[in-house]
Amino acid sequence: MSLVRSRAIAAKAPDPTRRNQQSRQAILRAAFELCSERSYEGTSVEAIAARAGVGKQTIYRWWPSKGAVVMEALNDVVGAASDFPDSGDVIADLRRQMTAVTTLLSSPDFGPVYTGVIGAAQSDPAVAEALAAQIINPRVDACRKRLERAREAGEIRADADLDAAVELLYGPIYHRLLLHTRPPSAEQVNTVLELAFTGLGPARA
Amino acid sequence: MSLVRSRAIAAKAPDPTRRNQQSRQAILRAAFELCSERSYEGTSVEAIAARAGVGKQTIYRWWPSKGAVVMEALNDVVGAASDFPDSGDVIADLRRQMTAVTTLLSSPDFGPVYTGVIGAAQSDPAVAEALAAQIINPRVDACRKRLERAREAGEIRADADLDAAVELLYGPIYHRLLLHTRPPSAEQVNTVLELAFTGLGPARA
Repeated sequence: MSLVRSRAIAAKAPDPTRRNQQSRQAILRAAFELCSERSYEGTSVEAIAARAGVGKQTIYRWWPSKGAVVMEALNDVVGAASDFPDSGDVIADLRRQMTAVTTLLSSPDFGPVYTGVIGAAQSDPAVAEALAAQIINPRVDACRKRLERAREAGEIRADADLDAAVELLYGPIYHRLLLHTRPPSAEQVNTVLELAFTGLGPARA
Repeated sequence: MSLVRSRAIAAKAPDPTRRNQQSRQAILRAAFELCSERSYEGTSVEAIAARAGVGKQTIYRWWPSKGAVVMEALNDVVGAASDFPDSGDVIADLRRQMTAVTTLLSSPDFGPVYTGVIGAAQSDPAVAEALAAQIINPRVDACRKRLERAREAGEIRADADLDAAVELLYGPIYHRLLLHTRPPSAEQVNTVLELAFTGLGPARA
């Protein structure tokens, strides 16, 4: 009886943790939407606060800068699309993950927000640091871990430099995306995997 | 006698071609210096004109935008550093060219101007187009031509996709440069060449 009562009270009482969580979600959603509509450069913390229905100070309580909010919003959208599966077949797993990522990069809502942030990183060291720390490095680590298991399983040669291998796989996708030569695609993923695993050189003895 | 006289007259007369050439060089030098001192974003066509000692209209007579001037200035600085030698040993030639390029990308005067322009390309389609057309694509083509000769010579396997091969070689360098994970280096060039030519997979039969 007293347990039921205390639960009922808890449900009716304002829950600051939950309210904070709702505000955070509203801010992240507003940040992503505004960047998608107006570009990263054209979005201000004031505009994010107005759309999320919070004060500007609420944003600065949780994030140091516009770059930090947008980075977390991007991370939320990427979410599971960048997880590395482990089916025991490293090429199939990389193909699945890299195809999901290139699809996201090519999408008209996510792609321009992401490249806008990478653009801002070229002239703003704080954005550059947040990009590497929050978006890139955790995924580089996850990819490296998948490659390590593949190396243990004999799918990758024992002496391959795996940090460099991650860059070899992902570098070509970013080359197209950021240098605007041609769009990244699922077909590119297939070609990259074939070249990276087989090598450019003539067949080894 | 009449020939000597006409030469003397030509030397004394104002030479518009030569004067134009001097103005162009002054503008390109000013554009590069200002971007290096203040960043690409912080440089205006007005400031370039003032430093070069020309009117703003002189710049717009030759280039459609700030992006176009800076792109040509960058191209002049890159110059011969990005030429592909042909010694008959494709790995040695790529190592020489890619090391020269990473040295330039890592230099404190060139690097930030170049990444600043790439940053601007993420939100300005005209800069993106000029970047691809003036800086990237001509070098991609030159690299591809060197790889074609290597394929003919049996240094690269006959079925390798050479457009993708260029991205495989250069992508890792841009991955570091633009995602700010760690600086491109001569050591990276060695690792990329080893991985790209040998492949990640276990030894082929």
